[in-house]
Amino acid sequence: MVGEKNSSAGTVGEIGEKELIRRIAGWLGPVNPPSPEGIGDDCAVFLAAEGSPQLVTVDPVIEGCHFDSSVAPEAVGAKLLKRNISDVAAMGGLPRRAVLSLALSGDTRLDWLRRFFDGLGKVAGRYGVSIVGGDVARKEGPFSAYLTLIGEAAGTRVLTRRGGKIGDWLLVTGTLGGSRAGHHFEFTPRVEEGVWLAAHAGVRSMIDLSDGLAKDLPTLLPPGAQAELEWDELPLSAVLAGTVRDREDGWRHALTDGEDYELLFVLDESHRPQDLIRDWTRRFSCPLTLIGKIVAAPAGEPDAPPIRLPASCPGLVLGSAYEHFRR
Amino acid sequence: MVGEKNSSAGTVGEIGEKELIRRIAGWLGPVNPPSPEGIGDDCAVFLAAEGSPQLVTVDPVIEGCHFDSSVAPEAVGAKLLKRNISDVAAMGGLPRRAVLSLALSGDTRLDWLRRFFDGLGKVAGRYGVSIVGGDVARKEGPFSAYLTLIGEAAGTRVLTRRGGKIGDWLLVTGTLGGSRAGHHFEFTPRVEEGVWLAAHAGVRSMIDLSDGLAKDLPTLLPPGAQAELEWDELPLSAVLAGTVRDREDGWRHALTDGEDYELLFVLDESHRPQDLIRDWTRRFSCPLTLIGKIVAAPAGEPDAPPIRLPASCPGLVLGSAYEHFRR
Repeated sequence: MVGEKNSSAGTVGEIGEKELIRRIAGWLGPVNPPSPEGIGDDCAVFLAAEGSPQLVTVDPVIEGCHFDSSVAPEAVGAKLLKRNISDVAAMGGLPRRAVLSLALSGDTRLDWLRRFFDGLGKVAGRYGVSIVGGDVARKEGPFSAYLTLIGEAAGTRVLTRRGGKIGDWLLVTGTLGGSRAGHHFEFTPRVEEGVWLAAHAGVRSMIDLSDGLAKDLPTLLPPGAQAELEWDELPLSAVLAGTVRDREDGWRHALTDGEDYELLFVLDESHRPQDLIRDWTRRFSCPLTLIGKIVAAPAGEPDAPPIRLPASCPGLVLGSAYEHFRR
Repeated sequence: MVGEKNSSAGTVGEIGEKELIRRIAGWLGPVNPPSPEGIGDDCAVFLAAEGSPQLVTVDPVIEGCHFDSSVAPEAVGAKLLKRNISDVAAMGGLPRRAVLSLALSGDTRLDWLRRFFDGLGKVAGRYGVSIVGGDVARKEGPFSAYLTLIGEAAGTRVLTRRGGKIGDWLLVTGTLGGSRAGHHFEFTPRVEEGVWLAAHAGVRSMIDLSDGLAKDLPTLLPPGAQAELEWDELPLSAVLAGTVRDREDGWRHALTDGEDYELLFVLDESHRPQDLIRDWTRRFSCPLTLIGKIVAAPAGEPDAPPIRLPASCPGLVLGSAYEHFRR
């Protein structure tokens, strides 16, 4: 950076907190508004858009948990913001402002950190997000960054996970599976798509697929319901093509890989999915696929799985979707 | 907890993420509103108070950095929220909603965590804060909790750090020093006091003392200014009485201990500090003290310290106020 003081200093420990925060403000550039709207006071101040429902979400990236040294720092910074943006998109909202809390060891390299902020800042600029404040804590051990994102409804409605009814249709954007092939750094949060869906009266509820269809789909089901999927219609990611052993293996990836960051939503049964898909295709380049419907769970089977297993493959395991902590 | 499933399970690793989040919602009780206003959807949803400036701040507690095993878990949870509330108080705001992001190892004990949430929840209830969402990440190593607090201005004005002028008065609430004697877990965020001060037209700017007077006071000074303190008026904490060696040692604690979480503010020179203190005393039980004023820095001394040293003690060290990272 031209004119940077102490530009020879290579680690956070060599420059101290005050200089570090000054540099972060520089690295973020225009996505960090001047104080008190941005970094530099006790809180960041903003005026809420009058009457719009506000949204708030938080997700971290932690070294050794969400990324390792093989990942470019730009991709880490970009993912941190994108995974939060995806949560806002899943409610039909627009991302607006973020605060960032870092836990760093003194040995953290400044060039790594600058590139992390470069990736974060580019995504922030692209999606109109201001980074308005944060905190830096010193801690030995892995790098952690926690981002809280505040968004707002684009219209008057936000789409929650509730509202699905037996008989309704299930649709998904994009393709599924492939996070293990690196897609979980490359994904595009479906912001415009989410806003468009929230404005569509037939769409009842929505979620973004962060943990995998097997874990996320059941959160859209009302009590006593089950999902019946059109297994052969599941839109598998092209990156799976060369790696899956057979059809069942492809389904398993689609169900349990996680981190697809596609939108899964419920369409009121009185609407025709074909009409929605036709309107969608005129507007968006990413695919939209009808993958099944919500049906009544079989009577007298309290332990029926939330997703009805394919007749051709009754032994397909659904329980392995990503569950933190379990040993 | 009565009726708790798997109540014999003692660690986070034994119950998994889903059950953990269910328990956290239970531990938080009424300060966690039902989804989508609270925990359970992609984002928490809220309607902003129309027209009020909104405030957002984030601060963590990290094991080994902000607390160790000698500290009761209730005190850790309480401190996490209180230090964020203090930032909102420092702008004259009211705390409203928080999201919480935890990084836990599978070995984290559930009884420790329940007590952490008990402390957090009690403070939330006392200050009217809703815990509206969050995230749980699995990570080996120390326990970390990051809280983002959203507040709003009580009136139309928020007090930033800017606005102080040469000639203005400097006042501080409560007493200083003593964080090393445990005060940094016992403090009371000055919310009502901050709101009252923000409504007072003579108060120009304000900060909460988290890093110590030596580091925080300079952020209230305009360019070319210096603080001239009434050294013998500094309100030293009673807990210092038995421990300080002499007057200078007391000042050093007041300047550099940090974590007092008292409010330091600038009063327009055209207002009489005695009048403000008289009105204050009728309303609040904590002390309010005039500690000095903003003066012009000596001409031709670009390296003059931001706080003028006492004539009796020109060697008093101001530079040791808490600076993260520096080796």
